[in-house]
Amino acid sequence: MERVDTILTGATVVTMNQQFDIIHDGAVAIRGAQIVAVGTSAAIAAQYESPNTVNCAGHFIMPGLVNAHTHVPMTLLRGLADDLRLDVWLLGYVMPTEREFVTPEFCRLGTRIACAEMIRSGITAFADMYYFESEVAETTAQAGLRGVLGQSILKFPTPDAESYDNSLKYAEEYIQRWKGHPLITPAVAPHAPYSTTQDILRDCTALARRYDVPILIHIAETKLEQEDSLEAYDETVVPWVQEAGLLEAKVLAAHCVHVDRAEMHIMHEHETTVAHCPTSNLKLASGIAPVTEMLEHGLTVGIGTDGPASNNDLDMFEEMRLAAILAKTAANDPTALPARTALLMATRQGAEALFLGDATGSLEAGKLADVIVVDAGPLHNIPHFKRDPNAIYSRIVYASKSTDVRHVICNGQWLMRDRALLTLNEAELVPLADAYALKVDAFLATRERDILSKLLAIGGLAQAESFEVQAKAIARDESAVQRLLAHADVQVLKEVHYRQYDTYFLFDDPAKGRVRYREDDLMDEKGTVTSVRSRLTYTMPTKERDFNSAVLLSHSRFISDADRPLRFYREYFQAQSERELQKDRRRWHIHYQGVLFYINLDRVVQPSLPHSFIEIKSRTWSAADAENKAQRIQEMLAILGISTTDIVQDEYLEMHKA
Amino acid sequence: MERVDTILTGATVVTMNQQFDIIHDGAVAIRGAQIVAVGTSAAIAAQYESPNTVNCAGHFIMPGLVNAHTHVPMTLLRGLADDLRLDVWLLGYVMPTEREFVTPEFCRLGTRIACAEMIRSGITAFADMYYFESEVAETTAQAGLRGVLGQSILKFPTPDAESYDNSLKYAEEYIQRWKGHPLITPAVAPHAPYSTTQDILRDCTALARRYDVPILIHIAETKLEQEDSLEAYDETVVPWVQEAGLLEAKVLAAHCVHVDRAEMHIMHEHETTVAHCPTSNLKLASGIAPVTEMLEHGLTVGIGTDGPASNNDLDMFEEMRLAAILAKTAANDPTALPARTALLMATRQGAEALFLGDATGSLEAGKLADVIVVDAGPLHNIPHFKRDPNAIYSRIVYASKSTDVRHVICNGQWLMRDRALLTLNEAELVPLADAYALKVDAFLATRERDILSKLLAIGGLAQAESFEVQAKAIARDESAVQRLLAHADVQVLKEVHYRQYDTYFLFDDPAKGRVRYREDDLMDEKGTVTSVRSRLTYTMPTKERDFNSAVLLSHSRFISDADRPLRFYREYFQAQSERELQKDRRRWHIHYQGVLFYINLDRVVQPSLPHSFIEIKSRTWSAADAENKAQRIQEMLAILGISTTDIVQDEYLEMHKA
Repeated sequence: MERVDTILTGATVVTMNQQFDIIHDGAVAIRGAQIVAVGTSAAIAAQYESPNTVNCAGHFIMPGLVNAHTHVPMTLLRGLADDLRLDVWLLGYVMPTEREFVTPEFCRLGTRIACAEMIRSGITAFADMYYFESEVAETTAQAGLRGVLGQSILKFPTPDAESYDNSLKYAEEYIQRWKGHPLITPAVAPHAPYSTTQDILRDCTALARRYDVPILIHIAETKLEQEDSLEAYDETVVPWVQEAGLLEAKVLAAHCVHVDRAEMHIMHEHETTVAHCPTSNLKLASGIAPVTEMLEHGLTVGIGTDGPASNNDLDMFEEMRLAAILAKTAANDPTALPARTALLMATRQGAEALFLGDATGSLEAGKLADVIVVDAGPLHNIPHFKRDPNAIYSRIVYASKSTDVRHVICNGQWLMRDRALLTLNEAELVPLADAYALKVDAFLATRERDILSKLLAIGGLAQAESFEVQAKAIARDESAVQRLLAHADVQVLKEVHYRQYDTYFLFDDPAKGRVRYREDDLMDEKGTVTSVRSRLTYTMPTKERDFNSAVLLSHSRFISDADRPLRFYREYFQAQSERELQKDRRRWHIHYQGVLFYINLDRVVQPSLPHSFIEIKSRTWSAADAENKAQRIQEMLAILGISTTDIVQDEYLEMHKA
Repeated sequence: MERVDTILTGATVVTMNQQFDIIHDGAVAIRGAQIVAVGTSAAIAAQYESPNTVNCAGHFIMPGLVNAHTHVPMTLLRGLADDLRLDVWLLGYVMPTEREFVTPEFCRLGTRIACAEMIRSGITAFADMYYFESEVAETTAQAGLRGVLGQSILKFPTPDAESYDNSLKYAEEYIQRWKGHPLITPAVAPHAPYSTTQDILRDCTALARRYDVPILIHIAETKLEQEDSLEAYDETVVPWVQEAGLLEAKVLAAHCVHVDRAEMHIMHEHETTVAHCPTSNLKLASGIAPVTEMLEHGLTVGIGTDGPASNNDLDMFEEMRLAAILAKTAANDPTALPARTALLMATRQGAEALFLGDATGSLEAGKLADVIVVDAGPLHNIPHFKRDPNAIYSRIVYASKSTDVRHVICNGQWLMRDRALLTLNEAELVPLADAYALKVDAFLATRERDILSKLLAIGGLAQAESFEVQAKAIARDESAVQRLLAHADVQVLKEVHYRQYDTYFLFDDPAKGRVRYREDDLMDEKGTVTSVRSRLTYTMPTKERDFNSAVLLSHSRFISDADRPLRFYREYFQAQSERELQKDRRRWHIHYQGVLFYINLDRVVQPSLPHSFIEIKSRTWSAADAENKAQRIQEMLAILGISTTDIVQDEYLEMHKA
């Protein structure tokens, strides 16, 4: 007799191996982190003995579920704001809250809650993308779960990095620290094509290939993403990331709701894997991913819950079930994505999607012992038909609940036994989470209730460009602008001339931000108005950073078309005060040394200011890029002959106050 | 102080009343079957006392959920067969099993299981459609749940009635027995437009109006249903049932996946209510119901689980959640069907859909005490944001699980306390259900495994007309047919002439049925073949009933286009024997006294039979109609001059054997 650490016996063993073997009255023997044997109870009993032999009669013994895409610390933001448009949800609530609250401590607590919830629902491995990912890794390892954990990298400042250069540095240190851990696979997570650049993707790919770790990324989650990509680059998202070399790495692409057949083909060629997140896709109205077609193309597709802020839980039983039933209506075929395939995607194929297919995802001798035991006999799951072997998959996918999970073992370690968690203390998590909720509530209430929520209520908000380097100066000699435009390093791309009428709604508490109603009357060369456009802008307090004369302005700003009269907005916002500003603006789009800048020459007409002003602006995404552009702005100021004493930092509105 | 029976106190009371009041630290006082008061815990404590005061701190007190559409005895068929096409599932598995097994005892046991499951998941009222509905009513009343329970009526024979005339009689007796019961509202349930006739709908409407009870019906569940309706009647389903007067009754229409705006308008005018069943619609690939548009049209829409054979459970938390998220993607708008609306549809509006809006569906003094208490603090539902009052609905709809339900009270009676059922014994239900499953497995295995499952595997099956009255006789004088066709009562609608080549695959066990490969060569008047068609037919054993010379044939038959060569089917089915039959057929579609019949004049060419044969056939739906048509067949046989001794009952295949 061979001695093993644990024998689970007397149950229906659903192996999910290549042959889809199901063993009635079966058993699994575990030694250390590994499965030693899978067979009938009798066969296992004949060869193995263990002081820890657990009778699992009336249960399924299954591979632990694999959650192929999530953001675990976001358990702390669950239910923060729902039933909103993606941009409003993300820019109005989630990102401001994250900027304020996401710290290493936040990530540790959020991850503990998520791990407890995932263990309870039978998940033993997951792929994560968030900030401070090393904290996520440490907490996950403590909880005993397996994680492919990606450090997020964005072109915007993030809670853990002021620029993407810093994120990359953090990511490399993080990889060095965790590479080779038995539970944790560190990964690089460029957030999405639209929130990165091809340069960022190139850097991420190089990093991932250098350390042979996976890349996690959001791909083609929304139709808008594809439309924007087509407009900006004349190609869809997957070819665009391929161009950046991304697909040379081991890439797990989340969502893929709007990939076409050509993109599937490219992904298949590069062995890019997919995380299908049906609940999140439905809830955010992103659409229905073409799962059946992806599987037909031979793609490896796992199933993910997405983050608990957009789901709102981490329940892979719900997710499997939804994946199975949604695919049928999407394909107009009730035989599409049958239960066995759904369970496969949530186990072995999910593990393959995480590039862990050799190690876990099925019950086979030699694989890691990631095993769950699920009650097969609750009332909501009777009777037990046996005629069709697929009935077992049907029962697991269509009728089992996450609360039917009884035991969870990961990497050979017991994480839950008889529904009691062994590595986490649930009771202490609830008050800690609620303490955060209280603070977040207070923060959002103070900051946004009055203005932003009113703006949200009237709808139509859109994200504005949020980060720009700019310099503003008194233009004592307007002809200097012509000098600049004629300079050898300058190429003029476009010129416009308009009159801008601004009405500012101001509030006593400047932290509330301010709302501007803006009318632009565009004029032709004779000064005749050719078109009029009205917009509403909500600006929240601005973070600034100095680069010599230029400043980095990090606006948090919402813009919407103002399709109602000024009077409406006046009454609606009930501002404490109102200010008007009328200016005449000439604007040039130029390339300076091949880099795009905007030059504004402004005369403030009403209330009038004694001088004209010149502004030089450019959008930016990284600290290094901002520094580079600030340097070029310096050079242009020199060409313009502007002295540093004429540099101004106030906005026009502030100048009048002074 | 006023004495009451029960006080639930110290919880967040989610009233779902007209003002959507939420009472933090609130309480509900119950006396008898009624809610006496709803208020803050302090206010209730100041006015009421009860020996049964239950501290519900950390919980939600909510109206019980309303399951607007189900078939409760079908718990016993849960997981019988999944991931199949609707017709295959229904005609290949569910209906044959129902015909064999559905008895009063089956309905009682299935209903007990369903009631236990529904109580566990916080349902206090439901709308049901099944057979032996009086048994469902008795069991539901014993379990203490509220039910609007419809006796099914179909044009086909059903487990509880050989024809719809009998169903109607049963329905009337059932209504008389249960009308006025405090928990049970009896109802009439014509199954669907396609499974009834306008006459049946007229009879059902008259019955429902006579007793002032609701009508439950399936409407526009599939696109095919609308297409068939348009083809057959040149109008969509709702106008067609309106024409039959159906909408003059109080109608709860299940599914409505494919209703257009005009139909919504008609339904709204008639105060027809709707049961939206998103899981079932997705799982059977029926599509996505236009819920947002229906709500915009002012329709009253509840949410239903549908039967557990097509869901596969009775979990209204899952159903609410799916309704909310699916509507967003359907409307391409993440603000569509917000959580509060989903909960409304599952409570007050659900009760209104069941025509119980005055009695239940919200927590208000004077309404019936249908109340549930749900744990607000499990790990999968933290933290607790309070800034936005909608966060409570979001938590209930997006994160709560049915297993979070702790207490259930219906009509003032405790049905579950601390998760223990008080009116049902769960432990005894499991072995009883499994005993049925064993019998069903054996039945289906014997009957169908070899042939039907093979047919299913190659796909493309379709339902054939299943019930016909027919007579067959030796045609000693072929010119007699011309006499009949020329008769004053006869109008010839169509004439065709073809040669039919049949290959029968036969099996030793006749209970297995048989497969026929049939090729029809259609010929013009000169005998030239103008088109060829191949079909595959699977015929299961036939039930017959005699009407003098005519017989009622109840075929259970599947037809598919045979797009592969005969050789394929020969190898595929591996029949014990094979028989060929070639006949020359002239076929006339006629009206005899205004009623449609088919006349076949057959010569069996190979192997040849000495005589020609004449067949007279007509489709039928009810026993009375069959009798009527059998009488007309008698008359036509007389016109043909056929003596009763020439009547044959054997099929051609049997004649050769003899």
